[in-house]
Parts: sequence; structure tokens; C-alpha cells
Amino acid sequence: MSHVSSVNSSSAASELLARHRETLDRALAAIRDRGYWTPYPESPKAYGDAQQGKDAFAAYLGKPFPLEQPGTDSWVGGERSPYGVSLGVTYPHPDVDVLFRAMQAALPAWRDAGADVRAGVCLEILHRINQRSHEIAWAVMHTSGQAFGMAFQAGGPHAQDRGLEAVAYAYAEMTRHPAAATWEKPQGKKPPLRMIKRFHVVPRGLALVIGCNTFPTWNGYPGLFASLATGNPVVVKPHPNATLPLAITVRIAREVLAEAGFSPDLVALAAEAPGEGLAKTLALRPEVRIIDYTGSTAFGDWLEEHARQAVVFTEKAGVNPVVVDSTDDYQGMLANLAFSLSLYSGQMCTTPQNILLPRDGITANGERRSFDEVARDLAAAVAGLLGDDARAAAILGAIVNDGVRERLERAASGELGEVVLASRRIQHPEYPDAEVRTPVIVKLDVADEDVYRGEHFGPIAFLIATDSTEQAIGLFRDTVRDCGAITASVYSTDEKVLQAAEEAAVEAGVALSCNLTQGVYVNQSTAFSDFHATGANPAANAALTDGAFVASRFRVVQSRRHLPAEG
Amino acid sequence: MSHVSSVNSSSAASELLARHRETLDRALAAIRDRGYWTPYPESPKAYGDAQQGKDAFAAYLGKPFPLEQPGTDSWVGGERSPYGVSLGVTYPHPDVDVLFRAMQAALPAWRDAGADVRAGVCLEILHRINQRSHEIAWAVMHTSGQAFGMAFQAGGPHAQDRGLEAVAYAYAEMTRHPAAATWEKPQGKKPPLRMIKRFHVVPRGLALVIGCNTFPTWNGYPGLFASLATGNPVVVKPHPNATLPLAITVRIAREVLAEAGFSPDLVALAAEAPGEGLAKTLALRPEVRIIDYTGSTAFGDWLEEHARQAVVFTEKAGVNPVVVDSTDDYQGMLANLAFSLSLYSGQMCTTPQNILLPRDGITANGERRSFDEVARDLAAAVAGLLGDDARAAAILGAIVNDGVRERLERAASGELGEVVLASRRIQHPEYPDAEVRTPVIVKLDVADEDVYRGEHFGPIAFLIATDSTEQAIGLFRDTVRDCGAITASVYSTDEKVLQAAEEAAVEAGVALSCNLTQGVYVNQSTAFSDFHATGANPAANAALTDGAFVASRFRVVQSRRHLPAEG
Repeated sequence: MSHVSSVNSSSAASELLARHRETLDRALAAIRDRGYWTPYPESPKAYGDAQQGKDAFAAYLGKPFPLEQPGTDSWVGGERSPYGVSLGVTYPHPDVDVLFRAMQAALPAWRDAGADVRAGVCLEILHRINQRSHEIAWAVMHTSGQAFGMAFQAGGPHAQDRGLEAVAYAYAEMTRHPAAATWEKPQGKKPPLRMIKRFHVVPRGLALVIGCNTFPTWNGYPGLFASLATGNPVVVKPHPNATLPLAITVRIAREVLAEAGFSPDLVALAAEAPGEGLAKTLALRPEVRIIDYTGSTAFGDWLEEHARQAVVFTEKAGVNPVVVDSTDDYQGMLANLAFSLSLYSGQMCTTPQNILLPRDGITANGERRSFDEVARDLAAAVAGLLGDDARAAAILGAIVNDGVRERLERAASGELGEVVLASRRIQHPEYPDAEVRTPVIVKLDVADEDVYRGEHFGPIAFLIATDSTEQAIGLFRDTVRDCGAITASVYSTDEKVLQAAEEAAVEAGVALSCNLTQGVYVNQSTAFSDFHATGANPAANAALTDGAFVASRFRVVQSRRHLPAEG
Repeated sequence: MSHVSSVNSSSAASELLARHRETLDRALAAIRDRGYWTPYPESPKAYGDAQQGKDAFAAYLGKPFPLEQPGTDSWVGGERSPYGVSLGVTYPHPDVDVLFRAMQAALPAWRDAGADVRAGVCLEILHRINQRSHEIAWAVMHTSGQAFGMAFQAGGPHAQDRGLEAVAYAYAEMTRHPAAATWEKPQGKKPPLRMIKRFHVVPRGLALVIGCNTFPTWNGYPGLFASLATGNPVVVKPHPNATLPLAITVRIAREVLAEAGFSPDLVALAAEAPGEGLAKTLALRPEVRIIDYTGSTAFGDWLEEHARQAVVFTEKAGVNPVVVDSTDDYQGMLANLAFSLSLYSGQMCTTPQNILLPRDGITANGERRSFDEVARDLAAAVAGLLGDDARAAAILGAIVNDGVRERLERAASGELGEVVLASRRIQHPEYPDAEVRTPVIVKLDVADEDVYRGEHFGPIAFLIATDSTEQAIGLFRDTVRDCGAITASVYSTDEKVLQAAEEAAVEAGVALSCNLTQGVYVNQSTAFSDFHATGANPAANAALTDGAFVASRFRVVQSRRHLPAEG
């Protein structure tokens, strides 16, 4: 409890917040202001340990990962890099009873340490993760298939931003009430009633983070740090093909916790044997009271339906729309869209899928462009962007798994509709076995709703002919509301169209980007400023990060007793 | 949307927040400070309209309630006062399709009006409710069975406090982010990327408040005002025997909304025909995205299980424990406990049920008192408190329904255990048909867990003999964790015992009162200072009021577009 925190937490722990106080204060200001801010530079050049990070990654390969946890009953692993390399790393597989007992035993001291100490420890964990951004980038690259540059930024500093943002929200929420307050109620001519009240922040219990294959750290850190900062021990169940980045993360967290005088078992890894379905087992354990999940709609819905003992935060699938009405920067628009479709082979939950434009064309730079001209020009823009193999590989990364490859091949076969840009295989300059493919663009009609109302995760985009911009905006609204979306965008020179699109976005509950033609892409969501997902459409039941993402991870338990009447 | 709010909301609406700005600001400070504060005096004498309120109540009787709503397909009602009077009021029964269409249609203008306008309207509604506290007190008295004094305070100013508290939390949550922000990301030597971002507060959809029989306003207002302030239209489904107080509330809300230029259908009453089960019908409607419920565990669990399209906030049943170890104010303790057991015939979710004390007795004022002496003395304290019929009636109120009366009679028969204080029937001085009963106290042993682990709602308390104080604290922790509790208290002169009780309260997740011997009772929970329930044990999944109670009632939907580079 907070009034005994000085007994339970070591001075090392207390010093951590002092060391990171300015970072926390600036993060607290940033979540209020929503402008641009980050403490973690996004350029690899800002970090001195490039070779060291690469070596550290290489040193993990072909060995058991150095992680000692209670209740390890076997070692499992079988990650294969999308670049064609088998990692050969094995990880501790848990005897869940034993591991959970150890985690439960660690809870009271962590709870009683209080919000300040917990925030300090979380910030130190993030700081050490940041220092090892190169190492983590290699691990993200060779599990997700992201190109190195993206693996560094999205898997490193940008993921750390999202973790820090979650700590800031958690800290703000825990400290909005005082630890103690005096209550004094007037009683007319009699002396007032006086009480002292204490308010304890009490975590819900164990928290489970279920990682995804494509963004193990970016999508994993918010839940991990939100739960940990609010006092909950966290068990991380990574995707079986993207375990290494989270294993490194867990190891760092355990080191910092132990150094600060806490049980390292406050954060643990739960790797699964092939075909085990460990996430289901963990999700239904009564000790698990919080679940954060990113992945398929089917399993997200299963979690929401069955893990009734827990608060469940999910990010699932969606059909991200783009409405194209008109533009005064046609080349900028095409370049921006081409990059958005190509980045990481369209394997982002934020990649556009459904590009809606009138069948009689658009106005571009003051001239009419027919639907087919726009299709041709967009195809040319993608082909141009990806014309050089080395440059293409650095944008596309590799296809993350066979499911995406098969889906792409089906779309490329013309089965879904007329192919207006064929996908081609790229020879990766360094990794001959890497599966690198350019996007396919398929032409559809508004009537083809059986196709475009489903998610086609991967480098597959649809150009959909509508009767009008008005119909396109209606379709944008209805598909988001019914099928979900993480992002949406609109191109128009007409303020009325932009306004209608914004109204549709508000109705359907999706973040909207307007007229992106410069160096910002609809795929990108910046911590401290952009809310990632909304929780207001079927693609996700939560947003990264707002008050709702942290507020129910703990409860306030109060006590009260009388104070003597004042003399 | 916020940037068009000036178009959509009338100037009358905008003026409301200006009028109530100081109240809102003080409420915002109060939820941070957690000291004593209220804008609504609790004494009936502070309100000048006593006779007018009584007359207004009388004028409702035997008539259709004056409430014009869309989709009223019939008029229903059959309230019978626990004081023996049939009210004879009928209320609009909804054609749900028609009513919900009207409520949905009202949503966009209310959403787009923004947080300030909505807060102003909510504060004006509360202000007018406050002005009619006498009228509402009569309605609460003759539906809940509370005595007039309690009906006035708990049903009037204290309920209004809880409503205002919910508005303050909702306002704080909606305004923690700006309506718009400029984002400027440095690009080395190139000009920075600059964007303007807008953040819209978007309500979830329709909100359903399911009222209870005993505290229609106190338990109904938090959900009603939290949902309304965050932009959600609210349909109020009252308990069929406690409709009038919420009908008056809905009528006032509709009047204020209409005067402010909004559709009155933003707040509507849904009264049910006998045996209709309307709450189930409403709770499963896809339009209903938020549910607030107070009542039985069975129906609360049903809602949590089946109303999957909604966020569900429940307050259910519990077994509130008291641990008696020792005291240096024996008479104060007995008097305090006697009053807590008697107030409103124990028909509060906060009334103590399980009084745990060592079988070899306690130390009181420095002397040993045996278990049987404590039982005898507590029985005498209750009997003394309720010795005068008129005074007893003013404390006890009336038995709310036959279920409570039957439960009391069963306990009084000795079926559950030895009766150490018999219940007696009181002749109410004004209402000859009122069912007024004093509490029964039954002696149990720690082994009788089949009895004391269930809730016995009503004037039924158990004195439970434990092997030791340590066992009592263990039982306190385990019964709260397993069976739920809204309140808990402890009496001890030993700081170690108080500390152990506080640790048990934190472990089990229940608010603890220590050594109450003066004019504060464990039953009482003061808005702006005490959190009512915790959400951390089975008695409730939410607390009144914290961030978690409001944060998920709306979502933030953003838009972003580039700003021109600065010259």
C-alpha cells in the first residue's frame, strides 16, 4: 500500500523516476498537447551500436535464448526469417501453474511500490530497450519480414514511443486522485466530522499480451507497459514466428525489475510449442484479468466472447478505404498512394485496401482523368517506385508468411477482378531466398462487395468504381461501420467533399487523413499525437492510447477513519 | 463536430455552461481533491418548496404521467407504495423501434454540440432537479419505502451530487485532449512536416439505464449523466415499482434539452408492462452500446454475459463484512452498528451483513466482553434505537417488497440460526398499511458458510463466531473476494489489526471504514470523496465514479491534413 511503499521498494527503484522524471513530465505534456514529440530519435545514425546490435542478434541464433524463468518445462522454437534464414532459437515453454504462481507472488510488492516507483522502472526498461534498438531491429526484421530501415524505426523508437505513451496515460490516471485526503463535513454548531481517507491503486491481476507476427514490439508495447505501470504482472505470449523481439524485451524488463529490487517474474515470456494453441489456454486462466491482443478478427472475437474474466483489448482486421474525388497535386497523390500500398508489402493494419473513385473519373490538376487513366497512372507510380530491385526490397521487405503469399497469388491470378498492376517477384540483393513481391492492384465495381468488404491482408489493393463521389463516401462510411478500418483517407480539392468525408469518418468511427501528398503516409500513426484505431468500429475495441486504454487496468480501493476533532 | 458546434447549438445552450461554470469548476477540483464538497444542501430546510413539492407529488397520483414521447404504444403502471398507497400513475410504454429511431436521430446534433454545451445542459438539468428535491423526495419515499428524511437526502441532493460527479469526470475525460493540435515534425535541413489535427469526441450510441427499486435516483443518476454528458442519448428503464422518481427526472431533462434547442428525445423513459421483461429486450438491441444497471446478481450477470454489443456497468449483490476485534468506545461502536443495521431496514447495498468476532469475545473499553455479551449489547442497542415507534419508522422506512418481507420472516423463524434479536412489526404513525419491521440478528458459527456467504438483502444481520480476529480477517478477505461486497468495516484499538484489515481490503478489493463510532456510518458513501463500490470484487464491475466509469462511453475520432510550410 502506498503508505508503506518506502519499506517495500528499494532506493534503487526510487531513484529511477528521479532519473527519468523529465522524460515522464514531457510525455505527460505531450499526451495533453498532441503535437510532435519523442525522446527516442528515429534515425539509426543516432545510435552508436550498429555493429554491436547486429552481432548481438547473430549471437542468439541456433541457441536457447538466455531467459531463466520459474516453471520452464521445455524449450520450444522454430522461427524462420521471411528472408529465408532459420533462426534456430529456442525459448522457455511454461508450466503455467508454476509460472503463474511466481507471477502472483510478485504482485503485492509491485502494487505496494506505488505509481512513482512503477513509472520509474518502466521508463528505465524503455531506456534500455532504446539503447538496444539496433539489436531489436535485426530481431524484428528477421521475424516480421520488415526491411531493416522500417524494422529499426517501427520496431524500435516508434514502438518505444507507444510504450512510453502508455506509461504516461497510466501514470496520469493513477495520480489523478491523491494518495490520501482529509474530509471535513460541517455540522452546523457542532464540531465538523473529520476523516482521513486513503486511496490505494490496486491492479486487476495478471495481464496477458498476445503478440502478432508483423509488429511484435509496436503492437505489443502499449499493453505491456500499460498493464505493468498499473501494477499488473505481464505474461507475453508472442507469435510463434515473432518471438525473438519480445524475448529480448522480456529479458531487459526482468533485468531492470531485479536490479530495482523486485521479482523479475513480474514480466515473463510464454512461448508455445507448434500447434499448441497456448494463447487460448492462457486467456481462459482465472488469474488473467487483462488481455491485449493484435491479430485476426476470428481469434479477437473468440477472446472477446470467451475470456469473460478479463478486460480484453483487441486490434483486429479492417478494410481501409481511400476516397479519391479530386486533387491539385496529382503526382503527389499518386506517389503518396504508391508508397502507402508498397510499404512493407501492404502488410500493415494501416495499409489502404479499398480505393474508391467515380467511374467517370476525377479532376486532377484542373483536368479530367478517367477511371482507367487514374488506374494506369497509379500502377505506373507503383511500378516506378519499385523499379529498382534494391530500392524495392528496402521498401517492400519480405512476405511474412505463406498465407499472405497465397492470397497475393490468388489476387494476381485475376480471380478477384481485372488486374491493373501485376505483382512481380523481386530478387533480394542480400537474401536469395527472401519472398519479395510487389503489390497487385485489382479493378472492381461497387457491385463487387463480396470481394472488397473482406480484408485481403497483404500487397493487394482494389480500385473500386463508384457512381459518384457521394456514393464513394457512403461506401466509405458503410464499409468502415460494418467491416472495420484502422485508417481512412480522402483526396479532394472541394472543402464540401472533405467535410462530408469527415462527417462519414465521425459517423463510422475511423481516423481520417486528408490530401496526403507529402512525406506523411496514411499508414503512419505517431505516438503522442495520432490515436491508432478508435475502438469505434469493428477493427478494434480500443485505441492507442487514450484514457479508456488504461483506466480499467486498476481499481481504487479506499479506507477511511476519523480524525480527532480539532481543538 | 466541434468545429461546426456554433452552427448547431443555440446560444441558449451555450449560455448554460457560463451560468454553471463555477459549479463545474468546483466539481472538477473536488474530484481531484477528494475532500468534502457539495453544491446541493442536504437539509430539506434549505429548500423553500416543501408544501409545493408535496402537492406536486400528489397531483401525479391516479393519472397518466405528463410525458410525451415518440412511439408510445400504450400506458402502463402499477406502483404501490411500500407505505400502503397505490399510486395509480401510468407511464408511456415504448414501441422500441419508433422510440429508438427518434433517439438515434437526435444523436448527431448532441454529439456535434461539444463537451462544453453538453456539460452546461447537464448542469442545468441537475439544477432543476435540485430545485424540485421535495417533489422527488415524495416520489422516492413512496416507491422505495425510504422514510421521508432519507428519501429527501439520498434521493435528492446526494443523488444529484453523484450525477454532478459523473458530469465532472465525463467533462474532464472529454477535455483532456485539445479539440485541435498542430503537429510539426523536423526534417533536418528540409522544412518541417506540418499538420493540423482535429479530435472529435464521438459517443458510442444509445445508453440504457436500468433502475432499481430501492435507490432509483441515487443509483440511476451516475450512468444517466455520464452517458448523456459524453454525447449518448439515454433511455431509462425504471424498476416497475420505482418509476415515478425517474419519470420526473426524465421529464425535467427533456424540458431542458428542448429549451436548449435539442431534441428532447435525447432522454426518454421506457416503462414496462407487468411481467414484460423489457430490460432484456432493450439490453440486446444493437443500438444500445452502454448499459448501467443496479440490482440482482442474477440479472447483472445475465447482462454481462449476453449484452455483448454494449459496455456494461453493473452493481450487484454482496455480503458486507464487519470485523470486531476491540474498541475503546464500546457504546459508540454499538450505536453506530445499530444505526447501520436499522437505516432503511437494512435495504441498502451498503448495509453490513456479516459481523465477525472471536468466539471468546473482544476487549471493549479495556474490559473483556464475551461473544454473547456483545450479541446482547448490540441487540439492546438496536432495540433502544428503535424503541419509540415514530422514531423507529423515521429510521426504518418501510419494507420495499414481499421478497424482503419473506426473507426477513424466514430469518426471524430461526431457520438460519439462533435469533439474538427478534424482529418486530412497527405501527407507522401515518400509514397504517405500511410494512415496517425492525432488524433480526442471527447468531452463526464460522462453519455456517452456506448461510453467510449468500446475500440476505433486508433487515437481516449475522453475528458470526470466529476462532480469532486473524480468522475473522481471513474470512472478511475470502468472502469479499468470492461473494462480493460494497462496504466493509473494522473495529480495533490495535494498529496491527487495522493494518491487517486494510491489507485484506486491498487484496479483496473493497472500501474499508475503520472504527466508526460517530456520525458517519459504513452505509454512507459521499460523492466527490468516497468511491462507491470498487469494481474489484464480484459485487460490482465498476465504481462511482472514477475514470474507468466514463472513459469508454465515448471514442476520439481524429482527422489530419497538411498545413502549408511556414514562409
